[in-house]
Amino acid sequence: MDGTRRIESVLEAAVASVQGRRCPPGLAAAVQHAVFPGGARIRPRLCMAVAGACGNPDSPVADAAGASIELLHCASLVHDDLPCFDDAATRRGRPSVHRAFGERLAVLAGDALIVLAFQTLARGAASAPQHLVPLLETVAAATGMPGGIVAGQAWECEPEVALDVYQQEKTGSLFTAAAVAGAQAVGADGTPWRLFGDRLGEAYQVADDIRDVLAEPEDLGKPCGRDAALHRPSAAQTFGVTGAIDHFRRLVNDSIEAIPACRGSAQLRALILLEAQRLLPEQLTRRAA
Amino acid sequence: MDGTRRIESVLEAAVASVQGRRCPPGLAAAVQHAVFPGGARIRPRLCMAVAGACGNPDSPVADAAGASIELLHCASLVHDDLPCFDDAATRRGRPSVHRAFGERLAVLAGDALIVLAFQTLARGAASAPQHLVPLLETVAAATGMPGGIVAGQAWECEPEVALDVYQQEKTGSLFTAAAVAGAQAVGADGTPWRLFGDRLGEAYQVADDIRDVLAEPEDLGKPCGRDAALHRPSAAQTFGVTGAIDHFRRLVNDSIEAIPACRGSAQLRALILLEAQRLLPEQLTRRAA
Repeated sequence: MDGTRRIESVLEAAVASVQGRRCPPGLAAAVQHAVFPGGARIRPRLCMAVAGACGNPDSPVADAAGASIELLHCASLVHDDLPCFDDAATRRGRPSVHRAFGERLAVLAGDALIVLAFQTLARGAASAPQHLVPLLETVAAATGMPGGIVAGQAWECEPEVALDVYQQEKTGSLFTAAAVAGAQAVGADGTPWRLFGDRLGEAYQVADDIRDVLAEPEDLGKPCGRDAALHRPSAAQTFGVTGAIDHFRRLVNDSIEAIPACRGSAQLRALILLEAQRLLPEQLTRRAA
Repeated sequence: MDGTRRIESVLEAAVASVQGRRCPPGLAAAVQHAVFPGGARIRPRLCMAVAGACGNPDSPVADAAGASIELLHCASLVHDDLPCFDDAATRRGRPSVHRAFGERLAVLAGDALIVLAFQTLARGAASAPQHLVPLLETVAAATGMPGGIVAGQAWECEPEVALDVYQQEKTGSLFTAAAVAGAQAVGADGTPWRLFGDRLGEAYQVADDIRDVLAEPEDLGKPCGRDAALHRPSAAQTFGVTGAIDHFRRLVNDSIEAIPACRGSAQLRALILLEAQRLLPEQLTRRAA
């Protein structure tokens, strides 16, 4: 999952295409703040890696699909941080969008990013419109209702929710979409990539839950202990921290075993193992001992 | 601009396609409340009327484009009503979404509706994917940055804004998109329809400003006098009420003169005149005398 520089330039071009003199300056700045500097860009890198594993490592359609998914991820962070949800003061080590620009521009920046995501996808697929319909369906299903990230967040408003449903929708869905879209963008069948994306997304969520317990705020760039404080379901709470670490390792192995037969499977396997190290470094898991 | 029943059934099918057992019940109910029962559905009726004027009154692609624009309009109403913006208690004679379901589900319902809009467009254009790229660009540009309804709303966060820019972006943009998309959906060139949509959208906004001053809350199903209370730019404030009524009539005539040469131009002209009566009935304008 390399290509970080490429994804940054695709994201920069997408955001720049809707800024400029005509745009209300506050909105343009809030959107900029929401997308740059980014996090690990793991979802678009996954999308591009799957496109590469399917035999096309330089697909502009996969770049656009990956960027679209990252923009939707950024939108969800901005809205999840709002006072009515997590009321988070910081994100990626800086003030959250609503703290820096106010609640109104945070609502609007999230909205604008959702629109920009679909626009980016359509522009990127302009040369291959036959791929746009399935790609858009994949990305929209992972974002909206009944089971995308918006639905996942909405489970926080219900009296009860199963941990696996909540996590699959809130986090897993964009990972699954990234894997499936990576294949669809280069004209391959996305379905066989679903299980791989599911397992990897679940592993990522479990790692996030563990970091929320074990890490210090300065490691994360955001507050820690939020799951417990907000009574949110969490793998660390369900399995205990060491149980959650074992669960994470199993999920990484499951994801690797779920990689469909393809030209670049060995390389993809190696990348997933590297990514697992990055997600849950040994110096962190040692704190659980 | 008839076809109200058809647009309701397209909207019902779109919303039902993402509800169902899997969906968090609160989110499903909030989205239902945001879309049904609707207002005049003027934007999708405009889209379908233009498709009809271009020679195809029964285009499922135009139906989908119209529904997509109406869903985006509903999303913007839900977010504009939020406590951080208008803090509106009522909409269409019923509690606003955030009053009925809470602020969190109002944020998420708006987000889900934006996603559903693009999904509806893609599904409707699946049989004509060559039309999807320009249609999606038209709809996205009217919604997001730099000059769509989200940008229009963001001007409320700036110290200064020109009335015409604010109104074109906040209201006009979806009218323009409805006219242009109606043509694009049936394979016609959208560009000649832009001026017609612009003028009609401007007329609609001026009528809305006038009603905000002259009507009673029970006529509107929402509070009156909000523009003045919120220090929002308004045509009634800029031109005075009688000046605004003259301005409205000029804009309706301008829109009719801007109808491009097409098979159904006479019928479209008659529909616009009827719509103008509905927007600003004589019993209302008499109150200004």
